[in-house]
Amino acid sequence: MPQYAQRIERARGAMERLGIDLLYLAPGANAQYLTGWRRNRPHFGNVNYPGGWIQGMFLGLRAGPLLAVPRMVAEFDLEQGSELDVRVLPDQGDPTAFLSNLLDEFEPRLGAVAIENRAWSEQVLALRQVRPDVEVRLASEVVAPLRMVKEPEELDTLRQAGRIVDQAMTEIVGFVQPDSGQTELDVAYEVDRLMVKHGADGSSFVTNVWQMGPGEVRALAMKASRRPLERGNSLSFDFGSTLGGYCYDFGRSVFLGEPSDEYVRVHALVMAAAQTGIAALQDSQHTAEQVNALARQAIEDGGYGEWFRHRLGHGIGLDVHEPPYLDRGDSSLLQRGMCFTVEPSIFIPGRLGARTEDVVVVGGSEGGRLLTSYRRDLQVIA
Amino acid sequence: MPQYAQRIERARGAMERLGIDLLYLAPGANAQYLTGWRRNRPHFGNVNYPGGWIQGMFLGLRAGPLLAVPRMVAEFDLEQGSELDVRVLPDQGDPTAFLSNLLDEFEPRLGAVAIENRAWSEQVLALRQVRPDVEVRLASEVVAPLRMVKEPEELDTLRQAGRIVDQAMTEIVGFVQPDSGQTELDVAYEVDRLMVKHGADGSSFVTNVWQMGPGEVRALAMKASRRPLERGNSLSFDFGSTLGGYCYDFGRSVFLGEPSDEYVRVHALVMAAAQTGIAALQDSQHTAEQVNALARQAIEDGGYGEWFRHRLGHGIGLDVHEPPYLDRGDSSLLQRGMCFTVEPSIFIPGRLGARTEDVVVVGGSEGGRLLTSYRRDLQVIA
Repeated sequence: MPQYAQRIERARGAMERLGIDLLYLAPGANAQYLTGWRRNRPHFGNVNYPGGWIQGMFLGLRAGPLLAVPRMVAEFDLEQGSELDVRVLPDQGDPTAFLSNLLDEFEPRLGAVAIENRAWSEQVLALRQVRPDVEVRLASEVVAPLRMVKEPEELDTLRQAGRIVDQAMTEIVGFVQPDSGQTELDVAYEVDRLMVKHGADGSSFVTNVWQMGPGEVRALAMKASRRPLERGNSLSFDFGSTLGGYCYDFGRSVFLGEPSDEYVRVHALVMAAAQTGIAALQDSQHTAEQVNALARQAIEDGGYGEWFRHRLGHGIGLDVHEPPYLDRGDSSLLQRGMCFTVEPSIFIPGRLGARTEDVVVVGGSEGGRLLTSYRRDLQVIA
Repeated sequence: MPQYAQRIERARGAMERLGIDLLYLAPGANAQYLTGWRRNRPHFGNVNYPGGWIQGMFLGLRAGPLLAVPRMVAEFDLEQGSELDVRVLPDQGDPTAFLSNLLDEFEPRLGAVAIENRAWSEQVLALRQVRPDVEVRLASEVVAPLRMVKEPEELDTLRQAGRIVDQAMTEIVGFVQPDSGQTELDVAYEVDRLMVKHGADGSSFVTNVWQMGPGEVRALAMKASRRPLERGNSLSFDFGSTLGGYCYDFGRSVFLGEPSDEYVRVHALVMAAAQTGIAALQDSQHTAEQVNALARQAIEDGGYGEWFRHRLGHGIGLDVHEPPYLDRGDSSLLQRGMCFTVEPSIFIPGRLGARTEDVVVVGGSEGGRLLTSYRRDLQVIA
């Protein structure tokens, strides 16, 4: 069991230091971190219930945590048997009055409330309506720093998510059949099925499988489509499992048919850059942006710098992208137990794509430890 | 081609009437309705780019529409070849200054801005920071009324989405094998695959497949799980395809093995209630809440009222749930071309579950027209 009580204590310590009286979190990673309350998988189209914006978790300096949810969410969506204090908004209830009453249970004189960065604007406006004088701030101020260094139990979960991804990758490579009519989307849906088969709760983000090569018709053909797999293209993967609310993020590129000399060279360059980044993930030795610069240099030295067009990686845990970022402008000093993706790439539209991605835990002088063990040499699918 | 120019004219008319100078919409149904800008499928874990909250569409009374997106979204996520005016926030840019400059291009003296109801709180706070005196209101005021009555082209898309669902349901029934080790989740993932196979862009919401019956261990076992399919249970479906940004929503219950007399009776009662609701979907004859009351009465008269615990249905189109709602408290008068789900149910935990759901277009005196034609008698999977 994660130590929710200890995490709540640390959050309250941060609130006190920052002058924040109340946290009002939407369902999401922060709420799970502090209470164990799980998000659902997200819907493509909005799903609306009366007073849906009320939904969230309240934590005061002394009171809470408690959850507020609309009646239909309480009856049909909420995990049963939770030990959390749940307040249910009736279908015909007035959500603003309900919110005002809830706030009364916390601090009588609310100075500052920190709300989820992605809480609905409707929630912010309602909060302003019932407490016009309150200062509204962002929950990331309080919770993001707590989540950066992972506890051993969190690392165990991520490692298990990585094992699922290793299994899915092993099986999907046997499934891929170029020039058979199979499409990128066929492969992507099979990846999703395989992750769940091997124990995942689902996909941590939308699975992406895409070809790059001379036959591309789109300027940047980097999203899974109904395009059939064809020899002569690189095939890149970007996917991750979720497990217990944690997110994995993984990638490889394989080649369909016989790769050119350039492809072999580019693929090796990407792998070398990844190795440089992984080796630099040492406790207290570098900042996040320095690691980005080191790995980027390897690709620049190889002459492909202009085609590595994104950051080297991002923190990962209960969210797919969370701070710190292995990116220019992030001067966080690395600490043991932080988790990052290391994901250099060379994508040249109309020519080729090569990428690799693993989740890596910051270690000691030996460098980072990978949580996936899938092979990293160039794999050719004839 | 949808008439975006006409829709924008109608939105501007509403803005003028309501005293709103600027719409600031997040990626979503409203932005697609007005400009054709498509949402991506959503991720389980948050995916973050520098200045990600800026992302949205701006429409003034005279200027716009234009899109603002972070650099990484512009390069890796945005559909290429769009004719929309796109402004790109650089990775190292200051998003609030960028926002302030954008606002300067619109009205010099902004009085009121209507923002997406689910825009991130971070966006609202930034807007307040750069324009402290602006009145912030909700975009639903402007756009929701426009979207209620569907244009012929929108109905065509929904009808096509319905055909995909009919095909997926026909095939999934042949796939289901009780007492074989197959689980609810196996069936749910196969539904997703079948919808895409038949032309869907994806699932409009998280596909749900669940059993109810004497063997239930959970209090409300209404979410697809790893529970194996067993004879003696009802098996309920809730799923929909997306097509061109539009959302379908469909449901049936089948029985695994030999149904009890009660199940046969309950299933027929649910179907009769649906028929009552469908027949009442006539132009200008009833309000939304009256249709709910009529169908509910049928189930109450049958003695199962306490187990029909949600509204009869909801508007549907670019979102899964959108106004009006066939629910107590919604006094909208029905109009030809509105689309609703009709979805009565009887769910008795530990005993049985029966539901049916189709999208129905409000018609004339003949009642509503169903957009799915899948059989509605009780189907038994031996």
